[in-house]
Amino acid sequence: MKKKLLLITMVLGHMAVNAQTVKNENLVQYVKPIIGTQRMGHTYPGATVPFGMVQLSPETDTPSYVLNGKYNPDVYKYCAGYQYDDKTIVGFSHTHFSGTGHSDLGDILIMPTTGALQLNPGTADKPLSGYRSAFSHQNEVSEANYYKVKLDDHNITAELTSTTRVGVHQYTFPKADDAHIILDMMAGIYNYPEKNVWTYLRVVNDSTVIGFRQTNGWARTRVLYFAMSFSKAFIAHGFKNYDTKSVYRGFWGKFNANKNFPEIAGKQIKAWFDFKTGEGEKVKIKVALSPVSMDGALANMKAEAPGWDFNQIKEAGQKQWENELHKIVIQSPSVAEKQNFYTAMYHAMINPTIYMDLDGNYKGLDQNVHKADGFTNYTTFSLWDTYRALHPLFNIIDPKRNTDMVNSMLKHYDQSPEHMLPVWSNSGNENWCMSGYHSVAVIADAVIKGNVDFDANKALDACVATARHRDYEGIGEYMDKGYIPDERSGVSVSSTLEYAYDDWAIAQLAKKLNRNDIYEEFIKRSQNYKNVYDPKVGFMRPKLADGTFRKNFDALTTINQGFIEGNSWNYTLFAPQDPKGLIELMGGNKRVVRYLDSLFTMQLPDKFFAETEDITRDGIIGNYVHGNEPSHHVAYLYNWTDKPWKTQERIRMILKKMYGPAPDGLGGNDDTGQMSAWYIFSTIGFYPVAPGSDEYSIGSPAINNAVINLDNGKTFTIVVKNQSDKNVYIQKMTLNGKPLNGLTIKHSDITNGGELVFYMGSSHK
Amino acid sequence: MKKKLLLITMVLGHMAVNAQTVKNENLVQYVKPIIGTQRMGHTYPGATVPFGMVQLSPETDTPSYVLNGKYNPDVYKYCAGYQYDDKTIVGFSHTHFSGTGHSDLGDILIMPTTGALQLNPGTADKPLSGYRSAFSHQNEVSEANYYKVKLDDHNITAELTSTTRVGVHQYTFPKADDAHIILDMMAGIYNYPEKNVWTYLRVVNDSTVIGFRQTNGWARTRVLYFAMSFSKAFIAHGFKNYDTKSVYRGFWGKFNANKNFPEIAGKQIKAWFDFKTGEGEKVKIKVALSPVSMDGALANMKAEAPGWDFNQIKEAGQKQWENELHKIVIQSPSVAEKQNFYTAMYHAMINPTIYMDLDGNYKGLDQNVHKADGFTNYTTFSLWDTYRALHPLFNIIDPKRNTDMVNSMLKHYDQSPEHMLPVWSNSGNENWCMSGYHSVAVIADAVIKGNVDFDANKALDACVATARHRDYEGIGEYMDKGYIPDERSGVSVSSTLEYAYDDWAIAQLAKKLNRNDIYEEFIKRSQNYKNVYDPKVGFMRPKLADGTFRKNFDALTTINQGFIEGNSWNYTLFAPQDPKGLIELMGGNKRVVRYLDSLFTMQLPDKFFAETEDITRDGIIGNYVHGNEPSHHVAYLYNWTDKPWKTQERIRMILKKMYGPAPDGLGGNDDTGQMSAWYIFSTIGFYPVAPGSDEYSIGSPAINNAVINLDNGKTFTIVVKNQSDKNVYIQKMTLNGKPLNGLTIKHSDITNGGELVFYMGSSHK
Repeated sequence: MKKKLLLITMVLGHMAVNAQTVKNENLVQYVKPIIGTQRMGHTYPGATVPFGMVQLSPETDTPSYVLNGKYNPDVYKYCAGYQYDDKTIVGFSHTHFSGTGHSDLGDILIMPTTGALQLNPGTADKPLSGYRSAFSHQNEVSEANYYKVKLDDHNITAELTSTTRVGVHQYTFPKADDAHIILDMMAGIYNYPEKNVWTYLRVVNDSTVIGFRQTNGWARTRVLYFAMSFSKAFIAHGFKNYDTKSVYRGFWGKFNANKNFPEIAGKQIKAWFDFKTGEGEKVKIKVALSPVSMDGALANMKAEAPGWDFNQIKEAGQKQWENELHKIVIQSPSVAEKQNFYTAMYHAMINPTIYMDLDGNYKGLDQNVHKADGFTNYTTFSLWDTYRALHPLFNIIDPKRNTDMVNSMLKHYDQSPEHMLPVWSNSGNENWCMSGYHSVAVIADAVIKGNVDFDANKALDACVATARHRDYEGIGEYMDKGYIPDERSGVSVSSTLEYAYDDWAIAQLAKKLNRNDIYEEFIKRSQNYKNVYDPKVGFMRPKLADGTFRKNFDALTTINQGFIEGNSWNYTLFAPQDPKGLIELMGGNKRVVRYLDSLFTMQLPDKFFAETEDITRDGIIGNYVHGNEPSHHVAYLYNWTDKPWKTQERIRMILKKMYGPAPDGLGGNDDTGQMSAWYIFSTIGFYPVAPGSDEYSIGSPAINNAVINLDNGKTFTIVVKNQSDKNVYIQKMTLNGKPLNGLTIKHSDITNGGELVFYMGSSHK
Repeated sequence: MKKKLLLITMVLGHMAVNAQTVKNENLVQYVKPIIGTQRMGHTYPGATVPFGMVQLSPETDTPSYVLNGKYNPDVYKYCAGYQYDDKTIVGFSHTHFSGTGHSDLGDILIMPTTGALQLNPGTADKPLSGYRSAFSHQNEVSEANYYKVKLDDHNITAELTSTTRVGVHQYTFPKADDAHIILDMMAGIYNYPEKNVWTYLRVVNDSTVIGFRQTNGWARTRVLYFAMSFSKAFIAHGFKNYDTKSVYRGFWGKFNANKNFPEIAGKQIKAWFDFKTGEGEKVKIKVALSPVSMDGALANMKAEAPGWDFNQIKEAGQKQWENELHKIVIQSPSVAEKQNFYTAMYHAMINPTIYMDLDGNYKGLDQNVHKADGFTNYTTFSLWDTYRALHPLFNIIDPKRNTDMVNSMLKHYDQSPEHMLPVWSNSGNENWCMSGYHSVAVIADAVIKGNVDFDANKALDACVATARHRDYEGIGEYMDKGYIPDERSGVSVSSTLEYAYDDWAIAQLAKKLNRNDIYEEFIKRSQNYKNVYDPKVGFMRPKLADGTFRKNFDALTTINQGFIEGNSWNYTLFAPQDPKGLIELMGGNKRVVRYLDSLFTMQLPDKFFAETEDITRDGIIGNYVHGNEPSHHVAYLYNWTDKPWKTQERIRMILKKMYGPAPDGLGGNDDTGQMSAWYIFSTIGFYPVAPGSDEYSIGSPAINNAVINLDNGKTFTIVVKNQSDKNVYIQKMTLNGKPLNGLTIKHSDITNGGELVFYMGSSHK
């Protein structure tokens, strides 16, 4: 009910806008960063530019990651710091993941206050017990690169914007003799006291502060440097070190180190800055980040945000977004559709994030400082998610950026002590989250699609070295036996399936580069998915080292069943590299159609929801779990059966059910843009079922027209005739005026420019 | 008794050597690094080159700095890691202070072992309970840049040597299938768990390890990077992380991260490396340090110690020592005298230490990396100690190095958040230990003596800014009232006295530079010593803010009496800038002679020894405390009375009583060479009573001849006729053949070259 009301509000807000997209139309207006901030989306409403190093956004709570020595399940909601249902804001921090299901960051939390100085954030139920403030969504504006909120308890209006490396705050104060800016270096996302390894702050002068925050979080060894500049000189400042165990906390009593002292270092540090403000006076703060040094942060600030014109910075960032959004211009009579689409575009272009100073310096996986030579270095690679549709999307709309991401991955390989391509790369650290070695799919996909601004042979070597890393999660056993034994790994089946797909991607890359021995090795490995299929039960199933299937098995359950983020019902369909072979393995066309139908329609027992990660009833259709990625290709599998119209039907159903222009409009974690990239592809009518192939599988376009503006200057136009909520079935298609008979288009069809016309109808043929 | 026996042993060891020093004589043979390693000297027996960044030396115990939440007094003995009376060695670490009374460092502890792997050091009483080993002094050799010891429990002979930035280990193993090298990153001097902020280790290949150690110790924010190379490949390695609180310790079970894994990061880390060794097989290890980066450490190793010739490295370092020692060549019939003297020379040339990579990069006080441009950057400035005689010694024998030290101090000023010259500078950190701002005396002394390879006016500005830093330890009150009120500081009297002296030094510098306003201000301030003298009791005494002296007062006690490391009896004599004025203040010649006589002869109550820091009965003559620095000029004060012969008598007595060529041969902490510098000056016949003046005060030379080889190519020769243990009184002196009638010589007398002849006798004139 609540969702519905909000939807109406948002649609009404744009009634005046022509529902048909016009050329050079402002597309930023359709971006609703608030989408996904309620429940599972794990997006954030704050300010960022495309792929920005800074993501400046409010935290509505900062629960400790560890409670009584154990994992605190409350943190999960706060992966991006913000939950729409919360009533208070703790402060504004400068780094956030977008849509992840585990977290880190939340660095350098700033909160403006008035009244008696409070250094404790207080609790959500008693906001007055600390510096946090109540707020309401009525007083909140969230746009691309702009966030505004009224902090009720302090009578302060907060506005945020950013450049790539600088977060900019604008706080409008009431008349106050006791205005403060709190800098809480103890706050953070997924924080707990031991995570704060070290903090250093230096007050350079009455309006400049520099420092760093060193953490042991999801990024195990990470230092974030920053420089902070105030538009108005503070009249006093202070520090507090909450660490009680360090012997060397102070200055031996030589100074009064708590008041107006120029520096502090320690594990648990907070600082405050005092002001007197007139009614309506704006105090602005710029915070520049650097992965390398405080000097780097200062230089980044000087270059990117030398002045104090908040609106100019906001508008420059929105201009960047406008350029990015225009890479696909859709026409739709539905404002909601445009909001969904352009918010998906927005969410798809937040991660990976730029990770280097303006001069190219960045901290590598080897803990050394490197200079990016001829490329832009990125981090925040959630590759288990993003190899599927996000990087393929970049291969179409931003190929240069995607090759820079590959270059960053290759540098990760060079610099990682394990000499492996990234699995989940965060701020110059590898956290090995999730399974597979899907970097290889990203690399293969880029090369196959002709986006090769790197040494492809060296990249293949990195792929092969990664895939042959016997010590890593059962690869040795996988190489020896063709599957990972259940004894070796708790996720032996899903990993076997993912390795097999990745191996196929390596084989495609090797073939392209005429490296035949590697092709032979890996094309053989790519068939390993068959080794964990149990024809007796018709499911992928844990296999023991002795070659027999594990007795205890439940295809509906994920945990302890050999899978991760997907049960066997979903994962059994995971052989995107070989749908034909899979169908044959599973008993042929008829059985697989029945299997797919069952998947989308079955009623699940209640315990499923209790036991499955990241899943709510909203994120699931039957037993099909769209909120987790392993099924993202599944609706397209009907294309390999005699019922491709069911793909068209299911895709439209998923688009409708799993996405909406409201805070709870994401049916699961956005996963650094993968959920959004799925939306973008499926909305314009095709999807990369197997990245590493040059083919896209046809779905059912949900817009009337889409123009892809390619960076080679050409355009690829998708015209959809007679499309509506009911007319979801393709009657025929033409490509550049000629009939398109298959269910695929090629990447070159897009990059050569041209026109794909869909003719839709209400019944399938 | 023990001491005497040892003395005989050491003398016998050199019976074959001609007792008269010959030209080009090997002087390294007289260096006994073992001097001062028993009890209070706090020197170490290990290997270092002059002013080396590496000081590679054994630890005989590593007690925790904190025990049950409180300071553990046991650590004090282990300021330099080694205590002569101990029976076991824990391992060999790469950084040590020489002679300090508080500590830090002890980084990167390495221990070779055989037998079952033990990662715990074990305890001194049960060495077999851990990796430590029993040893005996019979199997120990300690030379300049060479240390050797037999590790009895492991049947391993350990040898150590070094270059400036590289420590080199040579371990001779027995035949062993289970030989190990332990790398204990949890060990350290003045260590406790919270001091280990972060540790990173990376095994680059089977014979190279790199990493860093980040600590919160006496240096609050310090990172020491290193690179470690083995002459023989290890067959396996492992890590252990003893931290139980961090959630992010491992690798999510993807790897077996404890065995042969390439990296580890955490707060409590140990590592081991396994070998098989043949009988007598030597395994060598090089450990290069860097204050900046692991790459810096690798580059330092490559440049300074590219090969594996242990003896060549040892000899090259000893050659460096030979060059340094030859700066003063003495003749003495006494081998013990030569051992005392050249060990003093050795101990005087360990600290300050070089603190930069070979390419000039170093970490500054601002936590940024800087490049030393045109100078060598130093750290380990224990200036309260060393301004007195150590830097004046450098002004004679190593003026270029001293100006580089001044340049380093000026960079410290530039880079320190407080914009102050160093007080006690350690590894790019300021610990503010002890009182005064004696950098100014070092700078003034250098300029006055013509050693000015820096911008003297800028240096004066730094001195003035430091001396006017009102927030620092009572300077504001001192400037307002002419003294620090007792209410403001627990060491108000000694600080007032030291500030007054430092102010005089600033005045001298200002005068030299024709900065008359500054001269006037500071020459006036230099008289402030008079403000804390209470003529009623005849002592310097704590004064209250209201101008009255504090009632509760005990001139024999230090603690809570307004003094630090010296009671009022000693500190009352502290106005080296104005001995004449002080004598007048204290009631004139007769009273001061009586005061001095009392000081040297009085019997102290037992409680004095219990209450006074750093003092044993060995370190004291009457109530004169030579082991602490405030009295170092005191014996020379008779020169300003009508009894200068008493200076001569006392000096010889102090030289004899406080110094000896044995492990307990230092009557107090060597204090990074200050005690040794006092010895060197006094032994050759003069002393810089007031650094910042160009005059030296005459004492009583204890050798027959000394040639100072100046870096301008000239020599200054001190000839002492008829000198003996009894002939301590000067009968007459000539300088360059002309009678010298006063009791001073000028710095230019030395640097111009020439000959000073003393004629000694057994009775004073």
